[in-house]
Amino acid sequence: MVVSKSWLLIKHFEGFPKSSDFKLVERELPKIKNGEVLCEALCFSVDPYMRPYSQYSLKEGDIMMGTQVARIVESNNSAFPVGGYVVSNAGWTTHSISDGTSLTPLLPDWPEKLPKSLALGTLGMPGLTAYFGLLEVCLVKDGETVLVNAAAGAVGSVVGQIAKIKGCKVVGCAGADDKLAYLKEISFDEVFNYKTVPSLVEALKKASPDGYDCYFDNVGGEFSSVALFQMKYFGRIAVCGAISTYNDLEVSKGPYVQFPLVAKELRMEGFLVHRWKKRYDEGLRQLITWVLEGKLKYREHITKGFENMPAAFMGMLKGENTGKAIINV
Amino acid sequence: MVVSKSWLLIKHFEGFPKSSDFKLVERELPKIKNGEVLCEALCFSVDPYMRPYSQYSLKEGDIMMGTQVARIVESNNSAFPVGGYVVSNAGWTTHSISDGTSLTPLLPDWPEKLPKSLALGTLGMPGLTAYFGLLEVCLVKDGETVLVNAAAGAVGSVVGQIAKIKGCKVVGCAGADDKLAYLKEISFDEVFNYKTVPSLVEALKKASPDGYDCYFDNVGGEFSSVALFQMKYFGRIAVCGAISTYNDLEVSKGPYVQFPLVAKELRMEGFLVHRWKKRYDEGLRQLITWVLEGKLKYREHITKGFENMPAAFMGMLKGENTGKAIINV
Repeated sequence: MVVSKSWLLIKHFEGFPKSSDFKLVERELPKIKNGEVLCEALCFSVDPYMRPYSQYSLKEGDIMMGTQVARIVESNNSAFPVGGYVVSNAGWTTHSISDGTSLTPLLPDWPEKLPKSLALGTLGMPGLTAYFGLLEVCLVKDGETVLVNAAAGAVGSVVGQIAKIKGCKVVGCAGADDKLAYLKEISFDEVFNYKTVPSLVEALKKASPDGYDCYFDNVGGEFSSVALFQMKYFGRIAVCGAISTYNDLEVSKGPYVQFPLVAKELRMEGFLVHRWKKRYDEGLRQLITWVLEGKLKYREHITKGFENMPAAFMGMLKGENTGKAIINV
Repeated sequence: MVVSKSWLLIKHFEGFPKSSDFKLVERELPKIKNGEVLCEALCFSVDPYMRPYSQYSLKEGDIMMGTQVARIVESNNSAFPVGGYVVSNAGWTTHSISDGTSLTPLLPDWPEKLPKSLALGTLGMPGLTAYFGLLEVCLVKDGETVLVNAAAGAVGSVVGQIAKIKGCKVVGCAGADDKLAYLKEISFDEVFNYKTVPSLVEALKKASPDGYDCYFDNVGGEFSSVALFQMKYFGRIAVCGAISTYNDLEVSKGPYVQFPLVAKELRMEGFLVHRWKKRYDEGLRQLITWVLEGKLKYREHITKGFENMPAAFMGMLKGENTGKAIINV
């Protein structure tokens, strides 16, 4: 008999998530049926999207949403042999039964020397988000100037490095000085701390006096209202997320974007990585190649212990992580 | 000796334009030099863009900006023979001297039966704006649903009709009931008066319960904040103008757009028609063909008398015109 520990979302978030919104439970799992497998989680991902999407996708009492890298420990499904590794959408639960539909096997030639947790970060959804967002939405070109915020996060750190690989000047901002040091380490050209600069406008102007061709936006809110006016003519804005507004209790407002968009003929496009599902293999193979070549560096912010998942999630929302926030069981 | 009457912008607009911001003057023009021509205006255009752009492009005391259809009355430039008609950027002035650089001849095969004033409207900048904005920015496709506001205006009325030609369902809104009647006359499928509907959300939902693929935005402001949430997944928004905000004394604000853009993967792009300068001929020929076939109807709101230009301009900003606002000398 297998006992699974799960974190339930027992209360939809109001404002910033609280510990009391979650509850840890243990449940006995049934025997797997024909076609099913039993997965055991190795490590978990916490990501910004969970804040807004749990509101729409979950009922109170459901297991909290999220992905994990898991090992197949029992199998009645020949597509998923015992001992194989998968990325699973089972949510915040240590053990889960699946008929395979929610599982994606790790690439069969996953390099031994790379941690499997990268399948939740640089070599997973966040890495692919950076890859397709920058190449297909920003349509970034050699010699352009790219702005990225939340630059030390799971997505932003990959965006900046791919932009450098593609021959761009990269400006990144983050909310802590040790993050800025990390950004310089991974070859960002200009960095600043958006929390401590006296003026965001001046910081953006100083980092790139002639403005920005591309802006990869993870943050939204006031930062984006300011950045909009620093775009070059025909600039492209890839809107990946809006973490600065996810915990707002009331609808927050900023200056209307329409006239600035017209005056410089700017394009602003929201995207979700699923759009390129059929090209994930291409993206992952390119990302792995860059990692193995040493052109794409990664860092993980690891929290130990499944019991600390809510704390890790809230910490990520506060920006405590440099690189990808991972929870090891 | 030729005396030119001109309207000067003597005071940059603050809030809604006032009569006292303009001054009518008479000036003697010199003899034309080699390479120059003397133009005499037939009719003038007033357009929304003049409100924001006069702020950036003009100094106080300059002739107010704008286009006119003019006749060449004297010529020392073989490219512009006497008796030819041109669209000129000379601004609000009855007579002007040009070396030809600011002049665009009307198509040599301009149909006799069409008024030359159409070169300022359906067969000019506003028509081309509708054509390229809808086809190249909205990327409209057969069977889609298109929303357009300021739909009875010079651009909007063309947008709706081209969308119908392309096989779309078209929803238009305007601010007066006689305009709605006009929209039905030119084959809009659904229309509503944004000023009198009890709820904009409900009006948009009623007109197209499953939302909008394309939104051609002439208005910006609150209307656009509401419309954003009525877009379909992968919807495209062509931002042409933001007339609702042009007279604001303070920066007006609305809900941040980033999260709605991400959630439905929407694209929002500002544009100016000059982008397609090399394709004007293609656009004009298509527009003329549609007009001659009776597929593209036009209406002009004609003000008589050059002395009434400021009033016509202010009236257009208030939405007094159905169709293109034209001033005949």
